[in-house]
Amino acid sequence: MMAGKFIAFEGGEGTGKSTQARLLSNSLQSAGADVVLTREPGGTPGAEAIRSLLLDPPGDGWGARAEALLFAAARSDHVEKLIRPALDRGAWVITDRYLDSSRAYQGGAGGIGDDAVLGLHAIGSGGLRPDVTFLISVPPELIAERLAKRDGGTSDAIGGREAAYHQKVAETFLKMAEAEPDRFVVIDGEGTALAVHERILAALKPFLGGTQ
Amino acid sequence: MMAGKFIAFEGGEGTGKSTQARLLSNSLQSAGADVVLTREPGGTPGAEAIRSLLLDPPGDGWGARAEALLFAAARSDHVEKLIRPALDRGAWVITDRYLDSSRAYQGGAGGIGDDAVLGLHAIGSGGLRPDVTFLISVPPELIAERLAKRDGGTSDAIGGREAAYHQKVAETFLKMAEAEPDRFVVIDGEGTALAVHERILAALKPFLGGTQ
Repeated sequence: MMAGKFIAFEGGEGTGKSTQARLLSNSLQSAGADVVLTREPGGTPGAEAIRSLLLDPPGDGWGARAEALLFAAARSDHVEKLIRPALDRGAWVITDRYLDSSRAYQGGAGGIGDDAVLGLHAIGSGGLRPDVTFLISVPPELIAERLAKRDGGTSDAIGGREAAYHQKVAETFLKMAEAEPDRFVVIDGEGTALAVHERILAALKPFLGGTQ
Repeated sequence: MMAGKFIAFEGGEGTGKSTQARLLSNSLQSAGADVVLTREPGGTPGAEAIRSLLLDPPGDGWGARAEALLFAAARSDHVEKLIRPALDRGAWVITDRYLDSSRAYQGGAGGIGDDAVLGLHAIGSGGLRPDVTFLISVPPELIAERLAKRDGGTSDAIGGREAAYHQKVAETFLKMAEAEPDRFVVIDGEGTALAVHERILAALKPFLGGTQ
């Protein structure tokens, strides 16, 4: 089988990213691939510890700048200890969120700007980008319906922010996808999980070349 | 009394920074000043939580880049929530370590370079510099003697690094002081704490102008 690709799933909450990351990982493993399925913030013991600080902050919460630095620190650990070693041995890496979440949340909605987020990524992780980024797009009313069904409806420090923040996140994601069409694939996230999974498998084919 | 200054104490471990920061804070308070005495990493609930991650890392420890990002995140919280509000109300701020420790430890000894550390500081804290930085300088053999006397001789994840690392830290501190003589004052840290304190009070005078 061909050398693995680095694939990120992005989108707001309730878009089905985590489910789709898992389904793609299962499909590739069934085809015999070495697959590392991971998530951000997290994926390593250090990054998971930072995740706890981010989603359940001490004191009165993080400012946008400190929050961006913490995400970049978690990503630095994740890239150095898990993602780069996996890619180096030829494995696939599938991650539930990556750099573009920081660009959409802290850069766009948080207001620190794209240049600052990319600057942190250059220093922290050598600027490593995915080969393919699937942006799952779901209409806001369907997301609201899905989130209402989640256990207890509780939300973390970032998911619980106001609607205007999440609207800005969604807009920033779409702008990034338009600006970089060779890396981003926008996937229609409506319908069953399996229907969306099939769309992702079809969209992945052009990235695999003729060597599979 | 005049508006407060922002004063940092820097140097390797065992140089007496913390003691001198406390003595200066006491002297200024005795003279009627509003003084905030603080430390890095730490000084706010968020930054103290990051301090715990830095000095007692989960997993197998932080790489130099993740470590630098975590220090910058802690500093961002510290500056936003404690240092800037104190300076804005006219208080003095005296901190046991600040930016130049990141430049010496992660930038110099850790090898990520001064430009990267300054870039993180610009993004995280708007580049805020102290008015005066006291670099306490003590010969290595005296530091070894002092550290051996500390309780149990235990050391954290950074203090416990090898001698070559700490030698590089000391060299980087001195180079920074030479490059920025208007902000740095190198203080001879030999002798009693009170003798060193008197040197610091004398060195502070030129920074106070004629309005005290």
